[in-house]
Amino acid sequence: MSGMSPKITVELLRKLRQVMKGSKYVAEPIQAYIIPSGDAHQSEYIAPCDCRREFICGFNGSAGTAIVTEQHAAMWTDGRYFLQASQQMDNNWTLMKMGLKETLSQEDWLISVLPENSKVGVDPWIIAADQWKTLAKALSSAGHSLVAVQQNLIDAIWEDRPARPSTQLSALGLKYTGLRWQDKVMQLRAKMAERKISWFVVTALDEVAWLFNLRGSDIEYNPVFFAYAIIGMNSIRLFLDEKRTADPVVRDHLVLTEPSKAELHVECLPYQRVHDELQAVCSTLGPKDKVWICDKASCALTQAIPKMHRAPIPYTPLCLAKAVKNPTEIQGMRMAHVSSHMHTPPHIPKGTVTEISAADRAEELRSQQKDFVGLSFPTISSVGPNGAIIHYRPLPETNRTLSLTELYLIDSGAQYRDGTTDVTRTMHFGTPTDYEKECFTYVLKGHIAVSAAVFPNGTKGHLLDSFARAALWDSGLDYLHGTGHGVGCFLNVHEGPCGISYKTFADEPLEAGMILSDEPGYYEDGSFGIRLENVVLVVPTKPKYNYRNRGSLTFEPITLVPIQLKMIRSELLTQKERDWLNDYHRKCQEIIGAELERQGRKEALDWLIRETQPIM
Amino acid sequence: MSGMSPKITVELLRKLRQVMKGSKYVAEPIQAYIIPSGDAHQSEYIAPCDCRREFICGFNGSAGTAIVTEQHAAMWTDGRYFLQASQQMDNNWTLMKMGLKETLSQEDWLISVLPENSKVGVDPWIIAADQWKTLAKALSSAGHSLVAVQQNLIDAIWEDRPARPSTQLSALGLKYTGLRWQDKVMQLRAKMAERKISWFVVTALDEVAWLFNLRGSDIEYNPVFFAYAIIGMNSIRLFLDEKRTADPVVRDHLVLTEPSKAELHVECLPYQRVHDELQAVCSTLGPKDKVWICDKASCALTQAIPKMHRAPIPYTPLCLAKAVKNPTEIQGMRMAHVSSHMHTPPHIPKGTVTEISAADRAEELRSQQKDFVGLSFPTISSVGPNGAIIHYRPLPETNRTLSLTELYLIDSGAQYRDGTTDVTRTMHFGTPTDYEKECFTYVLKGHIAVSAAVFPNGTKGHLLDSFARAALWDSGLDYLHGTGHGVGCFLNVHEGPCGISYKTFADEPLEAGMILSDEPGYYEDGSFGIRLENVVLVVPTKPKYNYRNRGSLTFEPITLVPIQLKMIRSELLTQKERDWLNDYHRKCQEIIGAELERQGRKEALDWLIRETQPIM
Repeated sequence: MSGMSPKITVELLRKLRQVMKGSKYVAEPIQAYIIPSGDAHQSEYIAPCDCRREFICGFNGSAGTAIVTEQHAAMWTDGRYFLQASQQMDNNWTLMKMGLKETLSQEDWLISVLPENSKVGVDPWIIAADQWKTLAKALSSAGHSLVAVQQNLIDAIWEDRPARPSTQLSALGLKYTGLRWQDKVMQLRAKMAERKISWFVVTALDEVAWLFNLRGSDIEYNPVFFAYAIIGMNSIRLFLDEKRTADPVVRDHLVLTEPSKAELHVECLPYQRVHDELQAVCSTLGPKDKVWICDKASCALTQAIPKMHRAPIPYTPLCLAKAVKNPTEIQGMRMAHVSSHMHTPPHIPKGTVTEISAADRAEELRSQQKDFVGLSFPTISSVGPNGAIIHYRPLPETNRTLSLTELYLIDSGAQYRDGTTDVTRTMHFGTPTDYEKECFTYVLKGHIAVSAAVFPNGTKGHLLDSFARAALWDSGLDYLHGTGHGVGCFLNVHEGPCGISYKTFADEPLEAGMILSDEPGYYEDGSFGIRLENVVLVVPTKPKYNYRNRGSLTFEPITLVPIQLKMIRSELLTQKERDWLNDYHRKCQEIIGAELERQGRKEALDWLIRETQPIM
Repeated sequence: MSGMSPKITVELLRKLRQVMKGSKYVAEPIQAYIIPSGDAHQSEYIAPCDCRREFICGFNGSAGTAIVTEQHAAMWTDGRYFLQASQQMDNNWTLMKMGLKETLSQEDWLISVLPENSKVGVDPWIIAADQWKTLAKALSSAGHSLVAVQQNLIDAIWEDRPARPSTQLSALGLKYTGLRWQDKVMQLRAKMAERKISWFVVTALDEVAWLFNLRGSDIEYNPVFFAYAIIGMNSIRLFLDEKRTADPVVRDHLVLTEPSKAELHVECLPYQRVHDELQAVCSTLGPKDKVWICDKASCALTQAIPKMHRAPIPYTPLCLAKAVKNPTEIQGMRMAHVSSHMHTPPHIPKGTVTEISAADRAEELRSQQKDFVGLSFPTISSVGPNGAIIHYRPLPETNRTLSLTELYLIDSGAQYRDGTTDVTRTMHFGTPTDYEKECFTYVLKGHIAVSAAVFPNGTKGHLLDSFARAALWDSGLDYLHGTGHGVGCFLNVHEGPCGISYKTFADEPLEAGMILSDEPGYYEDGSFGIRLENVVLVVPTKPKYNYRNRGSLTFEPITLVPIQLKMIRSELLTQKERDWLNDYHRKCQEIIGAELERQGRKEALDWLIRETQPIM
């Protein structure tokens, strides 16, 4: 990964513009080339071989799209990354700040800079079908055209591009999954039958992993592996690197070794064959046959299905099934969180603890726990002004020392075989200023407002987002990121189809068993960052009344880590908020305390008891 | 208007099914016919000649779509109307409750009941272009097709259908509008130039009325008139009933009588000519010319624009310009609200005051005020269980007497030449139950939460909706309607493009000068209804901090009517809520009190002073 000094891109841009004009890769010269941040599975976290947007512009955040024209180079990202992107890109690049009113959309920007009748190229495997459609329409209405460039032009100029990984796979038993893959396939087919769907193309890596109860490590932090699947009513085709099919663990788990019921027989095919095989499947379809594919799947794969057979969906039945955790998964997530919280914050610093050493220590302590697999995302360990870089990760050249005078923010999480964790705490080791405490307290009020919210069954998560902001808004403050995301169970730390955000998207109604994060924050550029994040479980609740028998839901925190008392201006809390905090701390003390005691971690237990005293 | 006993529809349905099969109006038999509730301008309130959905099924609420197939008849409406619709329709009809999880969408229902390869007919003038598109796509993906039936099939069987009205128009001077129509046209053209748009088709009646500073009374409660306009950079075409063009008031106002600058010359053409004229305009377009039309405009008019020239927009620049009131309009709205509030609630009833007489009295008192034009919507005056019918209007057969034992809800408003009003109050003339007071207090908490909310510039209204519900949700209660709608200035009482609702639509960010309603409620079927509605103005505010210099907004109530103190359980309010209420009541006393004094209404003044005492 590159650092915080800008990447020099003059030469790369020259080369890219050359291949955009040349005839080697494009039939006709293209006047613009789009480099989205994803891979062919529209993953958020990607393997090094897929870090094309970072390669061309230097910005290595998880979200961003670069566009290069003959004259310009621009990169769009959201509020989490404004600061980081501006530091990582050289002045050949213009940072396009998404979410600000004055920022042009990609299509409007293209229309404003392109000469008449321009061709805009993009790799059809990297762009999602719905984005292709919107973009193609906007461009064509302005007299331009969007062109699928089969050979990726970044790959064409990327001399030492890494190979696509193919790591060892592991199979998860019933103890972890609660459901055999065969049963998941049958449940999926029941949903297909209900909607009269003949085939379903699985393109998201976490959906393939969840469906087959398999895990890999092809992508750092995400226990997934490069694969596609095509599921029919009597057929299962799994596309993955051939050498994986030879692995006895995989062969046993998928029952490749012995004859099984034809409808549950898994046919393993090479990863690269998916496009041709999907075309072959489609050539056998009757006139009424429909194929489900996520509208966020790649344009290339989507267009392999003839339009009359295509049934695009905003999220797949697997995505929804995966989001609603079963009792085994919920229990696993609880256990993983207990494991994940077996550590105290760094000792009161004597000038020897840095962002990096504190992050390393947290990782080391986590790795000592049962079923630890790895981190679930790069630890954000940030002191003072670094805390204002929302998705900061410490690097040697930016590494600050923890001190008695600056706020410390740590956002970290891990993968365990039974679950995935994600927690953020902000703390001060000396005496925080009144202003820091005031901001922290507003963030806490927002956190509690979401966590303690009672809402009717069927409510969509985005309706809860303003609860997290109300206290900040009242004082003229805000934060430029969503409030919560779905969390996978030993899967991706960010998953759909639910979330809590002011950005309204096709989010499904919340239901009991879903697991999300609750993480409001406040960031002051150049000074500090504050974020308070728990993972929370959607649970039924019974308030006083029950309007139209709809039933009500609320959240139960699964994360059990003290919220630093010295940061709280108690007089700004309502009694209800103080009660919530005291209840929460009591639960931390009970559950984490018992485990610390079992593990004989006396010092940590003393700290825990100190940090969970009730406030008045 | 029909009453609350169901309309007998056997014979009408038989006739409709006959014309659906016959060859007189349709080239081939259709298996389903859709009857939306709107007119050719997608108006919410419609003229009697356009009440086709009511004619066929009996339900006379403002929103609903009927669909008739060979075997079935179903009608979709939202939570405001579930009770009313079930009472007004006979058992040939199935009520489809929108917003409930188990309710099929129109397309899914059609797909579930239709035989293969069915044709579904609809009048292309009544269905909006965006709805046509969605529906056509869904139907065709299931093997059916959507067919434009040029002759409306309801009109074909409607023997005594009323004529389209053509009322006297009046011109509004600068004193009321703050801006000449010529200046509005020039501002519109500047926006067209900015987006490289050559023509703009004005289809919404309130947009035509606002643009030309003209008002009519073709539709009850809405001071609009049937017209279209096509605006080019050098041309203004106004389509309206020819006899209106002869009216000297109109001729003077539009400067038809003397030669004017060519670019501001208004060419008046017959109403019916709009389609052919639009086609004629389009036939002269260059390859890059674009025509703006709202995506909610009729399918017929939208398709008159060749696709390559069509630039559909979710709301028009006029819609947005109209929503942000200028200082003259704001002042007018304030004055209209003072006029509208010159009355007290009915005297403590002696059994002689009914829903109808109370509504009539409120109307009479309003009509005595300066600049009164008429009501802005049918008064909802409802006692006890009638209050639970959200858009109830009293009829002789449902008329209840106000009493000392039941809650009374009145939602009323009027049109004045300087503004439009809309206010709801719920009150009790005896001793309310604790439960009624509890529910009222939750509704009040929600009302205050929205009214007192501070939020950043650029916030969309739908993000505020949950604030209105939080207190109800906490106790397991809710209401099945949005929280607020835009309010026109001597125009429609419901207008876009902003609102406060859990339904997310293409709402524009709130900005200072917009005027909306804030009206949470609670309804208990068979018992009572509670709603508290103020009209509120979006105003800038300066909280303690100013994050990223974005600035903050809040609301200022323009409605100044006491909120009944005896309904409030003060102990359920926070100090901040009590302060808001006391401040609000102080303002009511000051402003309305001064006017009551000026008008010598001693009794009303005494009542006002009593009802606006501070609470502790």
